[in-house]
Amino acid sequence: MLGLDPDPAALWPVAVETARDLSGGPAELTAAAVERHCRAAIEAVGATVVAIKPQLACFERLGAPGWAALQATIDAAHDAGLLVLADGKRGDVPVTAKAYAQALVGSTPGPFGEVAGLGADAFTANPLLGRDALEPLVSAARTAGACCFCLVRTSNPGAADVQDLPAPDAPLYERLAALVHELGEVGDSGLADVGAVTGATRPEMLGRLRELMPHAIFLLPGVGAQGGDVAALGAAFEPHPAAALVTSSRSIVNAHEKRGGDPADAAAAAAEELRKSAWKLSGRG
Amino acid sequence: MLGLDPDPAALWPVAVETARDLSGGPAELTAAAVERHCRAAIEAVGATVVAIKPQLACFERLGAPGWAALQATIDAAHDAGLLVLADGKRGDVPVTAKAYAQALVGSTPGPFGEVAGLGADAFTANPLLGRDALEPLVSAARTAGACCFCLVRTSNPGAADVQDLPAPDAPLYERLAALVHELGEVGDSGLADVGAVTGATRPEMLGRLRELMPHAIFLLPGVGAQGGDVAALGAAFEPHPAAALVTSSRSIVNAHEKRGGDPADAAAAAAEELRKSAWKLSGRG
Repeated sequence: MLGLDPDPAALWPVAVETARDLSGGPAELTAAAVERHCRAAIEAVGATVVAIKPQLACFERLGAPGWAALQATIDAAHDAGLLVLADGKRGDVPVTAKAYAQALVGSTPGPFGEVAGLGADAFTANPLLGRDALEPLVSAARTAGACCFCLVRTSNPGAADVQDLPAPDAPLYERLAALVHELGEVGDSGLADVGAVTGATRPEMLGRLRELMPHAIFLLPGVGAQGGDVAALGAAFEPHPAAALVTSSRSIVNAHEKRGGDPADAAAAAAEELRKSAWKLSGRG
Repeated sequence: MLGLDPDPAALWPVAVETARDLSGGPAELTAAAVERHCRAAIEAVGATVVAIKPQLACFERLGAPGWAALQATIDAAHDAGLLVLADGKRGDVPVTAKAYAQALVGSTPGPFGEVAGLGADAFTANPLLGRDALEPLVSAARTAGACCFCLVRTSNPGAADVQDLPAPDAPLYERLAALVHELGEVGDSGLADVGAVTGATRPEMLGRLRELMPHAIFLLPGVGAQGGDVAALGAAFEPHPAAALVTSSRSIVNAHEKRGGDPADAAAAAAEELRKSAWKLSGRG
């Protein structure tokens, strides 16, 4: 999966150059460049990945033009036949969780007709607020035929501060894994519609997490720039070749910084290597 | 504090009527009506509250026009001399947390100059990802002279599923409270720049939370529609008259549904009652 975390200070040069002649202030021009950058990345690696994972933070920091660039990026990915996982790690009390669900995979009724949301095929959610706060997200995802990925054990070092606390006799992330298992509905594929974000940086945890969530799709961020190694992730793929999604952002989009050459060619080559490693693990390679 | 969680299906009639003649699709017209609704609510209760708390979910479900309405609402509140607490409960790994901080209280450098963020005076954050994920948010808030409110014990029933788990010998929310206390820097006022979201629906927890966070400002959502009672919140105000912020959304903005009459008049009366109750508790009334 191609992570899109566009950093306006490190966009592909072609995206910046073609945005330069447009009219608008810094927000409009930067958002236009971000959109072009994302479109170019989708074009470069679209044949190698099954989905994109736009990082909502990177778009919303550009205000309304950034949100428009996010929508355009999602639409471009759909046009290219790719799935879209909106990575916003949203979570709030039930009435607000429902509004987030409308934004991500639903629509909002109003006095001038229905307002469409982002139209994502999947999204990430934060489970700190408990089951009642997850339910509107899971339910909206189910209605839309989408997948809700709950944070279970994230890839950052600080995850240990909260997620690893013994609560009461197993780490908190095991309780979150149980919640994911309980909330998911298993389809004909044998996979559930509630997945888990399980960082690739601590692969030794994956066996136990797979025991606790036999049907969940694992989203494995942290490969590449964050230090995760695909070859160590075998346990995540065990039940089904599609039971794990490896996602990589900076190590694909910024591959030219290490490999040299054209950013699009470097990204395509890096994505192809990642695909081969993941397919080998999943028994498809 | 006036919570703004605009529901397009329950906007003040004047906001819908004056948006009807504009051009645009459902998203543009609905966002215009939401903006007018929020401006009218700020005008009606601005003299009674110190701040507004826009709920980001309710704006982003309207796409880019919704984000523009959010920015316009924030600017209108600032023009009215009010503070703005952007309620988005964001949280992610450190590199992404930095992007959220740019969106909320900072700006983003790029090839066409600096892109300004929302310019909020405070925001809410989700601490599930641990200390390293909170630090970029706290640090950006400090630079901007803003306040970061971390979720400690939320107001929904499901909060018990995760936040109340014994971890390892006290509930998880006590560990989150300790994190808030550690991260905060105490200013001349005696109040820290990291606050805590402590739902008003479980007032019996507030005494212990105040012990653990003697300098934190408590944000107390859940008064009114969610069932919280202001009179029970005394412990939150103990150290300082400004040590607690009572926030109410639907019971102010939708006050006309119960009281009848003009929505603006009903909102002003409901806000005034809430202010009196809170000031009495804080020793200012």
